[in-house]
Amino acid sequence: MTDLSAPGGKVRLFVEQPLGTGARVTPSAAQAHYLLHVMRARVGDHVGLFNGRDGEWLANIAEVTRRGCVLVCERQTQAQTQDDDLWLVFAPIKKTPADYLAQKATELGVSVLQPVITRRTIVQRVNGERLRANAIEAAEQSGRLSVPEIREPLELARLVRDWSKERHLLFCDEGSAPPMPDVLAKAPAGPWAVLTGPEGGFEEEERTLIRALSATVAASLGKRILRADTAALAALAIWQAQCGKG
Amino acid sequence: MTDLSAPGGKVRLFVEQPLGTGARVTPSAAQAHYLLHVMRARVGDHVGLFNGRDGEWLANIAEVTRRGCVLVCERQTQAQTQDDDLWLVFAPIKKTPADYLAQKATELGVSVLQPVITRRTIVQRVNGERLRANAIEAAEQSGRLSVPEIREPLELARLVRDWSKERHLLFCDEGSAPPMPDVLAKAPAGPWAVLTGPEGGFEEEERTLIRALSATVAASLGKRILRADTAALAALAIWQAQCGKG
Repeated sequence: MTDLSAPGGKVRLFVEQPLGTGARVTPSAAQAHYLLHVMRARVGDHVGLFNGRDGEWLANIAEVTRRGCVLVCERQTQAQTQDDDLWLVFAPIKKTPADYLAQKATELGVSVLQPVITRRTIVQRVNGERLRANAIEAAEQSGRLSVPEIREPLELARLVRDWSKERHLLFCDEGSAPPMPDVLAKAPAGPWAVLTGPEGGFEEEERTLIRALSATVAASLGKRILRADTAALAALAIWQAQCGKG
Repeated sequence: MTDLSAPGGKVRLFVEQPLGTGARVTPSAAQAHYLLHVMRARVGDHVGLFNGRDGEWLANIAEVTRRGCVLVCERQTQAQTQDDDLWLVFAPIKKTPADYLAQKATELGVSVLQPVITRRTIVQRVNGERLRANAIEAAEQSGRLSVPEIREPLELARLVRDWSKERHLLFCDEGSAPPMPDVLAKAPAGPWAVLTGPEGGFEEEERTLIRALSATVAASLGKRILRADTAALAALAIWQAQCGKG
């Protein structure tokens, strides 16, 4: 009997179903394939389960069928925790960097991934399913108890129009904004979002629109030219280090 | 006549040859292919050149031959600048994350990439050529005037034994070290290195070895579990934001 949920060989699966003592959970076909054929798990082996609501549970493989398997929850190993309320608002980027961005942003604790369409956004279509699959994988592997929500893309004008003034918007500006650590040292508590532009940056008119929001806090990541996804990860890492729950 | 070096459509090439007024430079076969066949450049078109020593130069395509092309330097567009003296010491990781790490670390301004072999390092071989190709591409695209040096992998014990006490070692520790922003707020000036572990972390004995170095400054990236490459990028982003030249 192998404890696949043990540290070192930890297998954690994100599922949609409710978790609780004795709850029976049917993993997806892909998860069952991973468990049974990649990890060579057998009846009686243990894995970790989480669904973003009920904490983490130790579950055993109770049945293996031709089509997959059934897991039964034994006991809760971690209570659900409240995530930081941190969104990442980003212009869609090419496939591979977007996969990576979704993974890294999940590790860095974002609660929502919000694609935004700007004038210089080259990639107009967003594969939400693919972003979600990447976010789930990162959550499973990084010990998170939740998966960030993937929102439908919004035009920038619409995003700005509907922006809640309660949510501080950390605008990674290429202009002469003060350095991000200085800005965040004085940052108010509450919900936040990090906003990064597309390759080529925002247009001047778009910058004016964003800066006009009362929730906007502009900050600079230095003189180096960072690719759009690098800027997003750098800003998230700095925000978490200074403002996150740790 | 197209100025391929202009902002927006900026083509920058890293070359080994000396740059100066009238200097003739032969790009590599891959660079010539990119210029002539991907960018459809012609005689008279302009590109940017840098070699890590002579700043950035505007050059024109003077000749196109069957085998490639010849570029001639016209004028210097940027003087060479001194990079931050910041190394990244990291345990080698799988191919794709290593490519990405080399790119991102280059954008984030590291001067040296030093692979280190630890007990839990799974990937023992490092493709230095591949790391360098990724670093060059990132330098070309991010406006850097230099390419980080890719060092040969070293065993951890050897690295620690030969460590210069002048170079502060920012040890991204999973233990109970203080948060990185607090540590860096009091950080001394001088050369630095960021040290991150392999998947699964350092062994206890290795941590003791690292912490015993007088140059070591241990810091925590928070309670979240970050993959090895994410931890490296987060630490570099935070170091640059707080200690870099900007």
